Amino acid sequence: MSKFLNKKYCLLEAYTPGEQPQDKKYIKLNTNESPYPPSQGVLEAINGSQVSLLNLYPDPECKELRRNIAAHYGVTESNVFVGNGSDDILNFAFMAFCGRDSEAAFPDISYGFYKVYAELHGIPYKEIPLTESLEVAAQDYIGINKNVFIANPNAPTGLTLSIDEISKICESNRDYIVLIDEAYVDFGAESSASLTQKYGNLITVMTYSKSRSMAGSRLGFAIANEELVKDLEKIKYSTNPYSINRLTNLAGIAAIKDSAYYEENCKKIVETREFTKSELKKLGFEMTDSKSNFIFAKNSRIGGEELYKKLKDNGILVRHFSKARIKDYVRITVGTREQMEILLNVIKGII
Amino acid sequence: MSKFLNKKYCLLEAYTPGEQPQDKKYIKLNTNESPYPPSQGVLEAINGSQVSLLNLYPDPECKELRRNIAAHYGVTESNVFVGNGSDDILNFAFMAFCGRDSEAAFPDISYGFYKVYAELHGIPYKEIPLTESLEVAAQDYIGINKNVFIANPNAPTGLTLSIDEISKICESNRDYIVLIDEAYVDFGAESSASLTQKYGNLITVMTYSKSRSMAGSRLGFAIANEELVKDLEKIKYSTNPYSINRLTNLAGIAAIKDSAYYEENCKKIVETREFTKSELKKLGFEMTDSKSNFIFAKNSRIGGEELYKKLKDNGILVRHFSKARIKDYVRITVGTREQMEILLNVIKGII
Repeated sequence: MSKFLNKKYCLLEAYTPGEQPQDKKYIKLNTNESPYPPSQGVLEAINGSQVSLLNLYPDPECKELRRNIAAHYGVTESNVFVGNGSDDILNFAFMAFCGRDSEAAFPDISYGFYKVYAELHGIPYKEIPLTESLEVAAQDYIGINKNVFIANPNAPTGLTLSIDEISKICESNRDYIVLIDEAYVDFGAESSASLTQKYGNLITVMTYSKSRSMAGSRLGFAIANEELVKDLEKIKYSTNPYSINRLTNLAGIAAIKDSAYYEENCKKIVETREFTKSELKKLGFEMTDSKSNFIFAKNSRIGGEELYKKLKDNGILVRHFSKARIKDYVRITVGTREQMEILLNVIKGII
Repeated sequence: MSKFLNKKYCLLEAYTPGEQPQDKKYIKLNTNESPYPPSQGVLEAINGSQVSLLNLYPDPECKELRRNIAAHYGVTESNVFVGNGSDDILNFAFMAFCGRDSEAAFPDISYGFYKVYAELHGIPYKEIPLTESLEVAAQDYIGINKNVFIANPNAPTGLTLSIDEISKICESNRDYIVLIDEAYVDFGAESSASLTQKYGNLITVMTYSKSRSMAGSRLGFAIANEELVKDLEKIKYSTNPYSINRLTNLAGIAAIKDSAYYEENCKKIVETREFTKSELKKLGFEMTDSKSNFIFAKNSRIGGEELYKKLKDNGILVRHFSKARIKDYVRITVGTREQMEILLNVIKGII
């Protein structure tokens, strides 16, 4: 760090994204991308005549996009906030709603960025341990009187909370926000989006990066009470109002219209997940009951780090986390059936 | 605002971007976009096969893009930071280098966002009045011992500082950063980019939104000492590592390779600026000596707000600022020769 950097960031450890190697071709099962391309409508929306308009700024309010998202989720445009990926929205939520007098709480094993946001903005936080079986225990958050951040399904375990449990968390923390990060919700969990009409403190965050095959586009959205949306907008308009690319805006609208295609893809991914899990089980793997597009697996015959490294040597990238409680696991993104068959063969060779 | 919003933002006034009306077609001379489309290389870079890869995350490090920018400016890749537009970078710079003990200083009339960033992050700041003739007086910043933020050319005046003046500011504020915001530099000012090799406290910020016809893409970059770049990366990786769209990354590389096209456009814009100014002068307008792609003009026969409104009624958008010292002016983006001829005719009708 330079001598100019504010000292408060000395100890800050930035988030480490999954590897995105640019040199060599890997089978990429490490960042939970969809293995399927965007829909036909998206391919058509990003056309030459639109590219030639890139000299013009996008609509900072993304009105049409928000209208389309709202219609899809049965809410109104004023309930929808859009950002440059869901990370952008999570960052704004930490900035807007947490502070010295308004702590944050999140699971000790979850999306690693929650802790980074809290540290970055100097927000006191409590990391709540998962249960023995790596589950988020709803009762730990009921009446906690802190701003709650929970990924549902959780990452990297893929385990879920029920809508009933989320309701209780919202109800019992009326003076704090409850943010449910639904990056992986379309692969088998129940969305809390409709609950936002009931609970004025609930923010449901979703992304186009996973089930909607648009990780490269950078688009996420939140559904919440109109006032919370306005607060998030205040932060957005005080940092980077035009953060969403013109073409992404159009692609986002097209993708919503092509929902049937993406639902079909999710179905395929769920089938491939279950197929892969049953094969891994035969090879002695233990796995969580993941409702997401990744599998969280360990095998007593090989450590997580070793498996990660050997798979990489064989041209397959998966993700390993060094945290003590989960260091025996690897997180494997569910790719196509063909990719998973290659993975299974390589694993057979390794163990 | 909701009851959940951190009270420190109560008084925060977000930045007001120029109007981006989606309903009606205007001649848009209000947000300093280029009137010319992106280059052929950009049009070709964003093609169907690249769109079909949007399911994959971008390279968060944007290595190839940074290499290309570095080569163009005669620096190395480690001297280049890229962000989601230059606003993104300005925000990070305020976050990273300013704080309670490290104040900011910027002109009282300049890009309105500097004040917003300072307010947002609770940074003490000093607004330094422009001179009588609306110029940034370099001597006001020499030895000021604060983090200096100066747009060069300045907005909305278009007036410039010399490289010699910028050097003196850097030299005399060794314990603070000096950020030169060169959003408009390609229309007639001298870039400070090469000075970054001499001054370890200088950050030169540029954007693809103006001279490079990519306002809709969201891409900006900074050139600075390697350590400052690492500091900015720390903030980026602690907020939103993937903020740059895959296609924008490719377009950014293509645009650098097509620099000749953009230089030709800048030449045309400068010619059109001078033509328009000489015509406006005949109509009794007074103007600053703008070296940017906008004209800052007033006419004793009509107030700035009135002129703005009447132009809007006639289908032409320009920008008006209500600040007392500049309320008589309008800021007019330099469009094509044809657009400016329409503007001149409409103005003749108005006054």
